[in-house]
Amino acid sequence: MQRYFSNIKKDNFLILSDNDLYHIKTVMRMKENDLIEVVYNHLLHICMLDNNYHAIIKETIKETTEKNFKVILCVPLLQEQKMSFVLQKATELGVDEIVPILTSRSIVKIDGKEDKKIKRWNLICKEASEQSKRLEIPKISNIKKIKDLTFDGLKIVCSTKEQNTTIKKVLKNNLNYDTIVFVVGPEGGLTNEEEETLKELSFVPVTLGNNIMRVETVPIYLISVLNYEMME
Amino acid sequence: MQRYFSNIKKDNFLILSDNDLYHIKTVMRMKENDLIEVVYNHLLHICMLDNNYHAIIKETIKETTEKNFKVILCVPLLQEQKMSFVLQKATELGVDEIVPILTSRSIVKIDGKEDKKIKRWNLICKEASEQSKRLEIPKISNIKKIKDLTFDGLKIVCSTKEQNTTIKKVLKNNLNYDTIVFVVGPEGGLTNEEEETLKELSFVPVTLGNNIMRVETVPIYLISVLNYEMME
Repeated sequence: MQRYFSNIKKDNFLILSDNDLYHIKTVMRMKENDLIEVVYNHLLHICMLDNNYHAIIKETIKETTEKNFKVILCVPLLQEQKMSFVLQKATELGVDEIVPILTSRSIVKIDGKEDKKIKRWNLICKEASEQSKRLEIPKISNIKKIKDLTFDGLKIVCSTKEQNTTIKKVLKNNLNYDTIVFVVGPEGGLTNEEEETLKELSFVPVTLGNNIMRVETVPIYLISVLNYEMME
Repeated sequence: MQRYFSNIKKDNFLILSDNDLYHIKTVMRMKENDLIEVVYNHLLHICMLDNNYHAIIKETIKETTEKNFKVILCVPLLQEQKMSFVLQKATELGVDEIVPILTSRSIVKIDGKEDKKIKRWNLICKEASEQSKRLEIPKISNIKKIKDLTFDGLKIVCSTKEQNTTIKKVLKNNLNYDTIVFVVGPEGGLTNEEEETLKELSFVPVTLGNNIMRVETVPIYLISVLNYEMME
C-alpha cells in the first residue's frame, strides 16, 4: 500500500499536500474507496479515499519502530546528484537528522540558495521515507560550520589521518549511547585544523579501513555498520 | 596519481587500452614525463609517459591488500542505472566477484544482449577499481540461474521471510571462512521455491533488520557490514 505523510487532521480525515494528491490521482491513478497509508503524528493510519480525495481514517495502527537510538549525519555540501543520493539512502537506512556542513575543501557553493536547497532536500527525504515505510521524516538542519557541531552523544569523525582506531573499536565500546553523530569529510578530506576543532568538540577520529570510498558512499557505510552493530 | 590497469608488458613498458590512452591524452591532458600508476599482474607500477604515450616502468611497488577473504555477490538483473550503481559501489567496497542472477520476479530481460552487457559491466568495474586504487578488478561471471549457484564458503541469502536469524548472528559465528557469498533478491523478493533451492545449496537465510531497503542498497549494506565484521 502506498504511504504518505500528513501534518493536518480535520474531523475524521487527513489532509494531503498538493504534490501527494497529484501522485495519487495522476501517477497512481487511484479512485474513490482505494486505500492508502498515511502517517500523521508518528502514527500509521489506514485511510480510504472519498470522492473528493479526502483520506478518511479507517484504522490507526500502533507500529513501533524498533530503533532505540538516534543517528545524526553531518555531510559536506555535495553536488546535487550526490546529495540526493546520500539523503535518499540515509533515509532508507534510518537516519534521524542530516546536518549539511561547510568545509574548507568542499567545492560546492550554494550562496543565497540555502532555503531553496533545504526545501528540496526535505522533499527528497519525505519521498524516501514514504518508500521505505518510515514513521518519521529525517530532519534537515540549517547548514552549519564545523565549529558549531555541538551535540550530545557518541561523536565520530571519519578521518583520513587516523590509522589505529577503527570505527568498530569505537562503536563496540560505546553501545550505551542513545545518540550517535557522524561527521563525513569532503573529497580530499577534512583539514588538520578542522579535525582538531572536532576533537576539541569531543569527536573521536576513526578509520573505516583500507577501502578508498567515494564521499557519497561513506554515509551509507556508516549507517549500515551502526545498524549492524545495534542488531541482536 | 591516476591509476590504470594493463594486461600487456613489453620490454620495460606497459601497454594501455585505447580508452585509457584517450583518458590520459584528452581528459587528463597529460604530457611526456608525467607519472601514472599502472597495475599489471596484481602489482602496482609507477610509470612515466614517453613521447609516444608508452608507460615506462620506473618503480614496482609491493602493495599488499589487507583483505584476507573473498566476497562473491549474486545480484538479480537490474535496470541499467541500478546495475551500474551496484557494480560501482561493490567495487569500491572490495567485492571480488559479481554473479548476475535470473530470478522469477526480475522484470529486466536482456535476451541476446548478454555479451554486450557483461562487457559494459566489466568496464564499469575496471573504472571503479582505478578510482578506488584497487589492485584487482572484480570478475563478472556469466548470468546464472538460482539452481546453479554452487559455491564453497559461507553462503548467505537475504530473505524477506526470515525473522530471527540476523545477518550479524551468522557472520559473527562464521569468521573462519575465507569466502563469503551473498545472494540478494529482486524487488518483491525471492519466491519460496527459490529460497528453498538456495537452502538445499546450503545458503543460510538471514534478515537484515527492520529497514526497508531498495534492492540496489542491499549489496552496499552487505559488503559494508562484512568489511566491518572482519575489521579489528
